[in-house]
Amino acid sequence: MGSNNDIADLAERVKAGERRALARTITLVESRRADHRARASELLKALAGTGREALRIGLSGPPGAGKSTFIEAFGTMLADQGQKVGVLAVDPSSVRSGGAILGDKTRMPRLARHPNAFIRPSPSQTELGGVARHSREVVALMEAAGFDVVLIETVGVGQSETVVAGMCDIFALLLAPAGGDELQGVKRGIMEMADLILVNKADGDLKPVAARTAADYAGALKLMRKRPEDPPGFPKTLLVSAQAGTGLAEAWSEIRALAEWRRSASHWRARRVAQMRHWFEEEVRQGLLARLHEDEMQTRMKRMAEAVVRGDTTPVAAAEAVLKQQENDG
Amino acid sequence: MGSNNDIADLAERVKAGERRALARTITLVESRRADHRARASELLKALAGTGREALRIGLSGPPGAGKSTFIEAFGTMLADQGQKVGVLAVDPSSVRSGGAILGDKTRMPRLARHPNAFIRPSPSQTELGGVARHSREVVALMEAAGFDVVLIETVGVGQSETVVAGMCDIFALLLAPAGGDELQGVKRGIMEMADLILVNKADGDLKPVAARTAADYAGALKLMRKRPEDPPGFPKTLLVSAQAGTGLAEAWSEIRALAEWRRSASHWRARRVAQMRHWFEEEVRQGLLARLHEDEMQTRMKRMAEAVVRGDTTPVAAAEAVLKQQENDG
Repeated sequence: MGSNNDIADLAERVKAGERRALARTITLVESRRADHRARASELLKALAGTGREALRIGLSGPPGAGKSTFIEAFGTMLADQGQKVGVLAVDPSSVRSGGAILGDKTRMPRLARHPNAFIRPSPSQTELGGVARHSREVVALMEAAGFDVVLIETVGVGQSETVVAGMCDIFALLLAPAGGDELQGVKRGIMEMADLILVNKADGDLKPVAARTAADYAGALKLMRKRPEDPPGFPKTLLVSAQAGTGLAEAWSEIRALAEWRRSASHWRARRVAQMRHWFEEEVRQGLLARLHEDEMQTRMKRMAEAVVRGDTTPVAAAEAVLKQQENDG
Repeated sequence: MGSNNDIADLAERVKAGERRALARTITLVESRRADHRARASELLKALAGTGREALRIGLSGPPGAGKSTFIEAFGTMLADQGQKVGVLAVDPSSVRSGGAILGDKTRMPRLARHPNAFIRPSPSQTELGGVARHSREVVALMEAAGFDVVLIETVGVGQSETVVAGMCDIFALLLAPAGGDELQGVKRGIMEMADLILVNKADGDLKPVAARTAADYAGALKLMRKRPEDPPGFPKTLLVSAQAGTGLAEAWSEIRALAEWRRSASHWRARRVAQMRHWFEEEVRQGLLARLHEDEMQTRMKRMAEAVVRGDTTPVAAAEAVLKQQENDG
């Protein structure tokens, strides 16, 4: 691979929905090699302008809420209806923590085998900026490949919910039933981003607890500031059971209704535009920081760090000197 | 103000320990104005090389652990002994949350009035990078001003513990007594940074609970990886009561013993050197990002963002173009 022809060919195959081509472009997009990055950028350019838009659904929730089971059940339901479903995770901690997100395919065995579904393998980066960058590109690839629904999952480590909310059309929070009125320590900032709160495990003995939890959250949502992008009744709380398969069709119907309303009221487009701007600005930011890793910069920084340690200069003055040199190079 | 003479004069007055001069330099250091930043950098240079080193103690703990009361009691004890004590907070959320850190002086009324103490007013920034940057500089100013002990507090929002651990010699965790064996949700990463765990409120009815909590943490600490910078017995768990004033002298004696050991074993110097390097690198990083705010860059970014939104280019390609232009300017 390498020539423009190859890129055009790969782009055509992605547009035709070829799974192997999609997998290959994702590998390219996630690579740290400069030549791979350059080709990924070319590919994204070749794939722009298809006009295809998936419904991007962000899903967050604490460990134990049942996110894997939910995505398995919900995604399979959609795929069975003939929808093309893409799944990816934004979780910078996955490599370190080992557990939660690694091995997506074994977490969702039915969905992983479904001909209408595509589960992106776990990203190998541990730094949120890098994970966010590649995730945005993977979402764009999935849209160009004609996916109807893209599910973007996060376990909610640090800022990752904000990152996911910044790349989805609809943001859902999945929670487990919980006793007490403590609202499970869900941060207010996360609640404020949610369009839907899904209380999972609403089956068997847990059903009454789930109903109480849902009522608590519905009450809390009522106290929050009304957002212009919400039709009456939203944000909404629903009971689901990923295990029993109940409430999933209702959740889907609510998501579609919300999406339709936002589309007709132009909120959809406004949000997409804001996300594009944000993506662009983030790319510039990351590009500026990438200069840190240029050879000349590294050499200078090493020398200046020694001067700082010897006490010949201060960290602030040394940084100013290095930055001035870097600028004069350009 | 403005000339080199003024800076030399201000630096001399800071070195002489003049409170008003210190307050003025802190205001300068925290300003966002470019001319203030330039003078702050000159000042830091003029103040380098005094050879003065404070004992920098980081203190973190969840809301409700009693951090203010502890610093009030602990700081006053040290100040009464004739030590010069500086206090500052690293809390990027303070402005938004309004409560916890704002109004430091009213939180610690006794210490604030003590002639040997200096409490830095709350930083006005909300972004962790900015707060960290200025806090490092304030610590350097306090050292140059001859402070013996600098207490750096954080409520532990997001990454702020890591930032504080990156600018202190000794890191202590303050906790409230708690029932159950749940270890109060203190993240493992935070535990791993702690040199001392202080279980506060070990008085009255809470005393037995505090003792159990301390035992639980002592057990948890034993299971952690041994660090080369720890003498036998460290990290250590202690019972204190900021309210009753008990355990504070013991805590101070343990801190001093640990500091002595680290000094003699060269760990102290190694840590300071690593922190200086890190500070320098952070300054370079922040300086690269500051280019985002240059006028020409802003103009270009605005134009390119429009092109992205119109669909004429992709976020990634637009960012590449902007970065290339910026580099060619230099």
